[in-house]
Amino acid sequence: MTKDVWNIIEKVRSKKPLVHAITNYVTVNDCANILLSFGASPAMCEAKDEVEDFVALADSLYINIGTLTGEQKEAIFLAVKKASKLNKPVVIDPVGVGALVQRKEFILDLLKEFKISILKGNLGEIKTLAGMDARVKGVDSIDDGSDGIDACKILANKYNTVVAATGETDIITDGQRVALIKNGNPMLTLVTGAGCMIGALSAATAAVEKDFYKAAAASVLSMGLTGELAAEEMVGSPLPGSYKVKLFDSIYSLTEEKILKRSKIIWE
Amino acid sequence: MTKDVWNIIEKVRSKKPLVHAITNYVTVNDCANILLSFGASPAMCEAKDEVEDFVALADSLYINIGTLTGEQKEAIFLAVKKASKLNKPVVIDPVGVGALVQRKEFILDLLKEFKISILKGNLGEIKTLAGMDARVKGVDSIDDGSDGIDACKILANKYNTVVAATGETDIITDGQRVALIKNGNPMLTLVTGAGCMIGALSAATAAVEKDFYKAAAASVLSMGLTGELAAEEMVGSPLPGSYKVKLFDSIYSLTEEKILKRSKIIWE
Amino acid sequence: MTKDVWNIIEKVRSKKPLVHAITNYVTVNDCANILLSFGASPAMCEAKDEVEDFVALADSLYINIGTLTGEQKEAIFLAVKKASKLNKPVVIDPVGVGALVQRKEFILDLLKEFKISILKGNLGEIKTLAGMDARVKGVDSIDDGSDGIDACKILANKYNTVVAATGETDIITDGQRVALIKNGNPMLTLVTGAGCMIGALSAATAAVEKDFYKAAAASVLSMGLTGELAAEEMVGSPLPGSYKVKLFDSIYSLTEEKILKRSKIIWE
Repeated sequence: MTKDVWNIIEKVRSKKPLVHAITNYVTVNDCANILLSFGASPAMCEAKDEVEDFVALADSLYINIGTLTGEQKEAIFLAVKKASKLNKPVVIDPVGVGALVQRKEFILDLLKEFKISILKGNLGEIKTLAGMDARVKGVDSIDDGSDGIDACKILANKYNTVVAATGETDIITDGQRVALIKNGNPMLTLVTGAGCMIGALSAATAAVEKDFYKAAAASVLSMGLTGELAAEEMVGSPLPGSYKVKLFDSIYSLTEEKILKRSKIIWE
Repeated sequence: MTKDVWNIIEKVRSKKPLVHAITNYVTVNDCANILLSFGASPAMCEAKDEVEDFVALADSLYINIGTLTGEQKEAIFLAVKKASKLNKPVVIDPVGVGALVQRKEFILDLLKEFKISILKGNLGEIKTLAGMDARVKGVDSIDDGSDGIDACKILANKYNTVVAATGETDIITDGQRVALIKNGNPMLTLVTGAGCMIGALSAATAAVEKDFYKAAAASVLSMGLTGELAAEEMVGSPLPGSYKVKLFDSIYSLTEEKILKRSKIIWE
Repeated sequence: MTKDVWNIIEKVRSKKPLVHAITNYVTVNDCANILLSFGASPAMCEAKDEVEDFVALADSLYINIGTLTGEQKEAIFLAVKKASKLNKPVVIDPVGVGALVQRKEFILDLLKEFKISILKGNLGEIKTLAGMDARVKGVDSIDDGSDGIDACKILANKYNTVVAATGETDIITDGQRVALIKNGNPMLTLVTGAGCMIGALSAATAAVEKDFYKAAAASVLSMGLTGELAAEEMVGSPLPGSYKVKLFDSIYSLTEEKILKRSKIIWE
């Protein structure tokens, strides 16, 4: 199964899927660059009179509501609707649903109305959407992880989607199959956008792999392993500015050997 | 007194205050990353139907009008009003008030109506707000610094706030006490966002230190010293791309020893 | 003629022109930093009630429609109109016109109504605007380059402007004179914003050189050569994260010798 992860990465590199992103303006540059370093082709477009035309050109759609504006809300609805109609993979990153009930309702509406390929959030966000108590701080999760798998399965089955919850152990499930990933590095929390980047990468992998469970595992594992490699590739102890630079270097340098030898993934 | 600066930095690192920022989209990623490297927890949120709920969760509010939009104007008003009501520290960064009279009026309105903890601007902006002649170029100050302390004191007393004016010598005053800081490095002007980052850091320090005069001194001094250290930590002469990376590394690596030995601060 | 390029760079460094940019939020930070590293002074301002006042203070105007919003559309129209009236150089970067017909019409309207100093796009965008078939993928050009010079000349003559089309060979023409530039490095396509940065730099050079043909050649050549030098200055094979950092370092370190010895420009 871990060999599949490598195959998906190779497919991204050869097909260079066009990922249409509607995302927050804090980490948008990082999302574009991580997609390029991963082998995909990013394009941001969020004017409401443009998104339907643009999603038709794209291979997948990435939605991140980190700094949701009024115009974005309308554009996201139109883009997801069009993507659903055209059967294009849609990845949703429900940033802030643990803190703001307005956002929670917006995301639940999208899940109810449309076919979402992958729902990727931190554990606090996923538990919130599953209707469970969750511990969050602003847009970050400080949840201890109990009931995590249950929360993911509930959401996956209810909305017929793949759920990826990031945390110390990442959880990926399609409601039946469950993968647990223990790659990663604490430095990832000292750089803004690690979560957003995983979401963007998920849209790249979903564009080339129809089994979205495997696609989600490939992106989460890629970023976790990248986070480890970036820390190791630094001389001395890792520092956040240099570490961020190394993330792009490291994901570009992923090889089959690194994936096969270093993956800490349990396919349950 | 300089020992207080270190204590404030340590408090930020241990409490990890949640800083709610409504800021410009040019340097927003840098502001988020400098807050993380400093030990704080950033969150950007600026939809007008969200900001009141979000500021209630936050430990402080940072307002920067570098690329003010119509929706931001409304959101800023609502957020500052709610923060005032809840007694949460508010830091204002009046970017561009020296160039655009519309912005000057907007900031003066905020100062008149609400309790602002720290007003942090470059000297040209501060002199403009004080009603004095100021030399500015776009959003940058090219003022020579004369009458700087007067300008700061006038504003601080008029609006019952702490004023921090950055320049070759940084000035901090609560209207009575005055601190002058001579740390810094010319390379800071070759990287966009140094001023914004000081503002964001001020919201982090104000979240943990009720004496906003000391809080402002701590953030201005931290960034100035970081600017020096980043330049020194480079092999050969400093270059702007690498220098920017080193800023995040250097602020993360600040120690009590560096603060006590290297501070060029005069507490008048 | 290549000596002129160096003279223009020196003029930017000594005059530090204020470039007013209305640009996309994906690469706006990179545009600001590349302008600073090049010696210019960037300022982003796009509120519709501010842009006319701000463009009056600026030395040139840079328009990039990469993430065009409704408010930006209005602001761009007002800013270009005011810049035309005040005879300030205007550079347009027609991002996405190859993919979205709405954007194509918006840019053609600007070209018809106002005096545009430099139109800088990738070859796919330029051919689209010239009414020719173009091969594009999202916002990127995958065109093979045939008819490129014709497309540029048609546009330059029709709208009385200088056209710069970037690609494996960059083409610059005022409708009569043609310059071909072969500097550059494939790594530039692995970092978001290389095209945007060329556009921003063109606004800096146009601010100090009234012969916009030479100004465009200077910015395109500077970025291409910077792309080469950044790759060479890395130990081992270039990696995208580190490469991006080196771009800012390298453009800051351009010298007359590098320009004269390394330029691959043919002034036809």
